[in-house]
Amino acid sequence: MEQLHRDRTIAMLGEQQLLQRLHRFCAEGVVGDDGAVLMPQPGHALVVTTDMLVDGVHFSDRTTSAADVGWRAAAANLSDLAAMGATPLGVTLSLGLPTALAVEWLDQFYTGIAQCLQTYGTAIIGGDLSRSSVVTVSITAVGEVLPHQQILRSVAQPGDVIVVTGPHGAARAGLEILTHPQWGQALSAGDRVSLIQAHQRPCPRLDVLPILKQLTPPLKIAGMDSSDGLADAILQICRASGVGATLEQASISLPPSLQNPEVLAPQQALQWSLYGGEDFELVLCLPPSSAQELVTKLGSAARVIGHIVSGDKVEVLGRDGLKQPLELQQGFQHFG
Amino acid sequence: MEQLHRDRTIAMLGEQQLLQRLHRFCAEGVVGDDGAVLMPQPGHALVVTTDMLVDGVHFSDRTTSAADVGWRAAAANLSDLAAMGATPLGVTLSLGLPTALAVEWLDQFYTGIAQCLQTYGTAIIGGDLSRSSVVTVSITAVGEVLPHQQILRSVAQPGDVIVVTGPHGAARAGLEILTHPQWGQALSAGDRVSLIQAHQRPCPRLDVLPILKQLTPPLKIAGMDSSDGLADAILQICRASGVGATLEQASISLPPSLQNPEVLAPQQALQWSLYGGEDFELVLCLPPSSAQELVTKLGSAARVIGHIVSGDKVEVLGRDGLKQPLELQQGFQHFG
Repeated sequence: MEQLHRDRTIAMLGEQQLLQRLHRFCAEGVVGDDGAVLMPQPGHALVVTTDMLVDGVHFSDRTTSAADVGWRAAAANLSDLAAMGATPLGVTLSLGLPTALAVEWLDQFYTGIAQCLQTYGTAIIGGDLSRSSVVTVSITAVGEVLPHQQILRSVAQPGDVIVVTGPHGAARAGLEILTHPQWGQALSAGDRVSLIQAHQRPCPRLDVLPILKQLTPPLKIAGMDSSDGLADAILQICRASGVGATLEQASISLPPSLQNPEVLAPQQALQWSLYGGEDFELVLCLPPSSAQELVTKLGSAARVIGHIVSGDKVEVLGRDGLKQPLELQQGFQHFG
Repeated sequence: MEQLHRDRTIAMLGEQQLLQRLHRFCAEGVVGDDGAVLMPQPGHALVVTTDMLVDGVHFSDRTTSAADVGWRAAAANLSDLAAMGATPLGVTLSLGLPTALAVEWLDQFYTGIAQCLQTYGTAIIGGDLSRSSVVTVSITAVGEVLPHQQILRSVAQPGDVIVVTGPHGAARAGLEILTHPQWGQALSAGDRVSLIQAHQRPCPRLDVLPILKQLTPPLKIAGMDSSDGLADAILQICRASGVGATLEQASISLPPSLQNPEVLAPQQALQWSLYGGEDFELVLCLPPSSAQELVTKLGSAARVIGHIVSGDKVEVLGRDGLKQPLELQQGFQHFG
């Protein structure tokens, strides 16, 4: 663990100084009472989502700097809010830290968190610190949504079309470049940086929510985010809604830089876009006319990739005209 | 770690079975979407509070069973809500778990959490599971309070009297019995059980909130809970409010079983009641007439223990008529 071999450790700083240092990164008025106070808008439901990240399990120094660990942790929780149609109200952050942790690591980590939260108009509103043998991050995000604007996995209907708010596979390609730098030599330097960025600094799609609110007529939208992969999102929505889906391979888009067969063979491209994960796009199911309106408003990166059908078959219609079932890849298995 | 040496581990169970097992302990409808949805009452502010507990730092098998770890973790967060005047809406629970953890430990832990939450009319509404080398518990509780009924540390005023909702020192005595069983032989078996219970199953004082709402006239109450000790609570309130306080030693009460000098010498009794910690009572500052009304309504265990003064001196008036400054004991130092 590289983060342990630096000059100054948090043990040298002591608890009071450590807290003072971290309060700089928090919303004003955080310090003081036993809990943080938030005022939701009238008539709004609250959405609460939580994640735990453990050093060596969810992140490693090899591919992720402290600042990126912070950004990604915040982004994942904001994406969970976006996936429910909710706007963030604030985030609590609990950390378990080894006493030998470098102060520098912690500063960078908080900088990454704060940058992400600030980008999306929210802040750290509370938290807890504890000693631990392993760096452990627990984030809870609270958001608000008008009940009829809530996005749910369970309300997809046959006849809905499936919209993705952006391309898939970029984060997976970024990880490949970081772990196997010899990969993708046909990519331009700029494209390599963009793909790495997609892995290190994913963007939760909170910007989609105001556009969804403008759709006419207003409707109940089914959906979730694609952080565990596009295939996983579609399978989860179909399972929760008791429906099936047909995706069109030709419509499932990678970022332009990966559409070059010299970079990525077509079969590999499909694998990465379906199962790569961590792209943080929204996968939404809605009637065709509203879907078209949404895609137009979101711009060229968004597109219709398939439609919901009755039954329980979830299939990909290949360029060869043959259908293949979408696999349930066990993403990240923690236990067993 | 005793919890690792049992027959069946969570690795043997596998992730899907593990999740199914834990969903039994959660509120209905938890499973499914990316976040939990709560509907606060109109006009209410939200209070969010969070704690991280780490095996070997905050709990150990020697004094705390898995069920008690769960109860205490839930109770501490509910007590933080009570300390703000807030009624619980729900709790999220993230766990970091070694793969070799006994399933039995996890079952017992969830049972303890669920028992506590059920006792206080709330439930687990979401969470996350991760592999970790050390058992790590992160709890976030969300509550609601009408803004004018919020209890704050910062609004104590000279002339207010200080009310505690119950005796202090019981949890400390319970810990002593668990760690030094030869201690307190003069106590009856029933009293020993009660004191151990005070340590293992502390009760957040959410029951005080409806009584505070009945006080006439309605008023802005200063206060917090005494989970870090009675002295710490008074010092925190005085610091946040820019005031001092005078406590009367004769009024600071231990539970009846500890008032016997054969069990506890008076000086030790004062130490434990001021600095013992983990009693989860509320320490409230309010005008004398309202304080009297509150004490009457709460019953005999509640009492006035002193009053707020101008300046910044926080002192204890001894039985000998001499004043001693209240010490700022560094409770639990995690770092440095």
